[in-house]
Amino acid sequence: MTSPATFSVVEAARLIASGELSPVELTRSILERIERIDPRLKAYVAIFHEEALAEAKRAANEISMLGPRSSLHGIPVAIKDVYDIEGKPTLAGSRVRVGHIADADSEVVKRLREAGAIIVGKTVTHEFASGVTSPPTRNPWDLNRIPGGSSGGSGAALAADLCLAATGTDTAGSIRIPASVNGVVGLKPTFGRISKRGIVPLSWSLDHVGPLAKTVHDAALMLNTLAGYDPADVCSIKEPVRDFTDRIDCEISGFKVGVAQNWYLDRIGAAVAKATQEAARTFEDLGASVEEIEIQHLDLAMEIHSTILSAEASAYHQSMLPVASESYRRGTRVFLQAGQLIPATAYLNAQRARELIRQGFREAFSRVDVLIGPTLPTVAALFGSNKVEVNGTEEDITQAYTRLSIPANLAGLPALSVPCGYHLGLPLGLQLIGKPLDERTVLRAGHAYEQATNHHLKRPNLV
Amino acid sequence: MTSPATFSVVEAARLIASGELSPVELTRSILERIERIDPRLKAYVAIFHEEALAEAKRAANEISMLGPRSSLHGIPVAIKDVYDIEGKPTLAGSRVRVGHIADADSEVVKRLREAGAIIVGKTVTHEFASGVTSPPTRNPWDLNRIPGGSSGGSGAALAADLCLAATGTDTAGSIRIPASVNGVVGLKPTFGRISKRGIVPLSWSLDHVGPLAKTVHDAALMLNTLAGYDPADVCSIKEPVRDFTDRIDCEISGFKVGVAQNWYLDRIGAAVAKATQEAARTFEDLGASVEEIEIQHLDLAMEIHSTILSAEASAYHQSMLPVASESYRRGTRVFLQAGQLIPATAYLNAQRARELIRQGFREAFSRVDVLIGPTLPTVAALFGSNKVEVNGTEEDITQAYTRLSIPANLAGLPALSVPCGYHLGLPLGLQLIGKPLDERTVLRAGHAYEQATNHHLKRPNLV
Repeated sequence: MTSPATFSVVEAARLIASGELSPVELTRSILERIERIDPRLKAYVAIFHEEALAEAKRAANEISMLGPRSSLHGIPVAIKDVYDIEGKPTLAGSRVRVGHIADADSEVVKRLREAGAIIVGKTVTHEFASGVTSPPTRNPWDLNRIPGGSSGGSGAALAADLCLAATGTDTAGSIRIPASVNGVVGLKPTFGRISKRGIVPLSWSLDHVGPLAKTVHDAALMLNTLAGYDPADVCSIKEPVRDFTDRIDCEISGFKVGVAQNWYLDRIGAAVAKATQEAARTFEDLGASVEEIEIQHLDLAMEIHSTILSAEASAYHQSMLPVASESYRRGTRVFLQAGQLIPATAYLNAQRARELIRQGFREAFSRVDVLIGPTLPTVAALFGSNKVEVNGTEEDITQAYTRLSIPANLAGLPALSVPCGYHLGLPLGLQLIGKPLDERTVLRAGHAYEQATNHHLKRPNLV
Repeated sequence: MTSPATFSVVEAARLIASGELSPVELTRSILERIERIDPRLKAYVAIFHEEALAEAKRAANEISMLGPRSSLHGIPVAIKDVYDIEGKPTLAGSRVRVGHIADADSEVVKRLREAGAIIVGKTVTHEFASGVTSPPTRNPWDLNRIPGGSSGGSGAALAADLCLAATGTDTAGSIRIPASVNGVVGLKPTFGRISKRGIVPLSWSLDHVGPLAKTVHDAALMLNTLAGYDPADVCSIKEPVRDFTDRIDCEISGFKVGVAQNWYLDRIGAAVAKATQEAARTFEDLGASVEEIEIQHLDLAMEIHSTILSAEASAYHQSMLPVASESYRRGTRVFLQAGQLIPATAYLNAQRARELIRQGFREAFSRVDVLIGPTLPTVAALFGSNKVEVNGTEEDITQAYTRLSIPANLAGLPALSVPCGYHLGLPLGLQLIGKPLDERTVLRAGHAYEQATNHHLKRPNLV
């Protein structure tokens, strides 16, 4: 029999609803697998063995009497360790946070609990979610490689079937990057779509909250639970939330798909270029109209992003840095100190220039419904390296990995990464970017592509 | 016969609708009065004699055939010289802007034209709307005194019956301060309620757009025309606009009025304190419940405001300042240069601290519907002075004049100034502050107070 740990949320929810699968059995199989595999993978910083089993038993009882509350009822999920869980430490990958205990659930955790999800543990992140390698976690496709970041633990845990769904945060690509290198799905929704209350911030105006999942449909189910206005989060948007799985199975013929040309196809590896071309052909086969699109002003993106990120992160850490200086990792410390030197005028002019990026996307979206391009210029890098080679040129790994995801953070647009093939046995990711608030089109296009290609069915070998 | 120039908008609109007053006669009486009085008052920087008469004739024709389009149809209004009017210079009180010609109407001017208002001229402002004295304009109640600022020209023009309604902008009190010292009404609506498109900015997150008028009812009519979502202004809020004159004449018994104690009653002149006490009694007489309210965190307001204002203004002028340095007034130049030294972290932490001010008001508004307090600690200062005496202590005029208006800018709340009595023959202003988006309560309370006291009927003597 297939281990229930390998199920998608949709599969498990169907079996739970029909009484063929117990949340206890499912949670137990996840916990056993974590016990067996995580010592090598190191995706988790904390595992809530007892609590998860107790929750699973409560869920099983409730479901047997009343049926499931939602598609997530009885489903084991993993939480990135920047989200507060009441009574647990939120370490955010940093020694600075040692001793911290959350006094309340973050809004996302609260919503997951209300939906009946089982929280099995907290996953590794880069210090303060600022980095793309998430040590000590390894990539389940090749334990000598990185799992991406900063939601690297969530990406690796999902790919290794150590949870059925997970949460991430994305300031420069931190949901989409691990999704790409681990061969799973990652969704950064529209800015403000999901509440950030109770999540350790990196950069207020760039931080996005979202799910990682094994399939696009699963990501849509997670979004259904997580999305919604929260007056306690000043960034939260007051927009109606519809069912994001609505018509997800329908044909996408007539969809207008734009293949982002400039920026997204610059300085990428040959295998990535080829996979993107093939994806465009798949969309044509699915009946979509496909055209090449130029997006203006993207050459400004890295500088704008860097100024805003440094200034906002430094402001958040300003009072902590002098008193806990030695507890920060060296790279983080230097980054935060440098940010204190940025003048307010530079920050404000970066925020103004950001409007140009939005404008570039607005023009593109006057012609198409969804934009596609690669998530990353290359595959997972080797563990321990700060450099990555793209087309024979060495590049700083953070620069290389965030280059293609940053524009959607600046513009606040929904962006999805789905598996789009393999190179050297390692997964590649396709990025789909949509109009503000239009997660549904992005999810429908992503689902149709996923179902047509079945790249997501290939799994890493971990015994 | 009373000169039509002395009418309120409500009075003039009624007579225009009934055919008893022609927009041409009205406009002519305004233009004649401007010609006679403005050489002494200096409220206008530009008078559109020909265009205004031609517009008035068109309005008269249209009204005689189809009736008035709105209450503003055929009504002469004055525009603060920071708003673009197509084909006209927007000097914003600065030599830096000499040679500028606007290529389109600002959103406010566009809306006024659509309503049929007659634009008679542009009014004096302090350089880049940054200052409270608006030279060379004089106060119509005493030509040796200042008209306040930065919408000083609009306030003086209204008080002297040189227009029937006017526009202003308010970053630190620039609508309410001239309203107070000129004995007219000034409304700073909720942040984002009126579009800023086509208005020279001072400080993005603090700038508010609003009307000045002779009565509260007139201000509500202006707001009806000006308010509304504008996608071209990133600060514009997508909120439904109702009729702000709705039930403005109804009784306010049962209204909960809070008299702001701390901050608003600190360091104010004896006459101002007495007028505020009397206002509280008037609200009691009107059937409102009146209680004393403390508002937390207001002692942080000046420092937060100063950091945000300096940084945002300096960012806007950063590219202009080095090339046109000598064209700025000395005070403005030093202010903008100093702003360039503010670190981004200080700016961002000021924006974070701003949330405390909002919270202080939120707590107050959990108990009352509207807060009252003085608009200014004292009356109009003597022309040419940078100091003002409050209770025997000399204070910088900008600090003294903006102290009581700044909190509503930081919190983005609607705030109205209405005449509340006289000291040394000079007007005093009462400030009414409301909940976000609740201009209607503020206007209803202000109207009831105005009708009960009739302070607005006293006019300056200018022959």
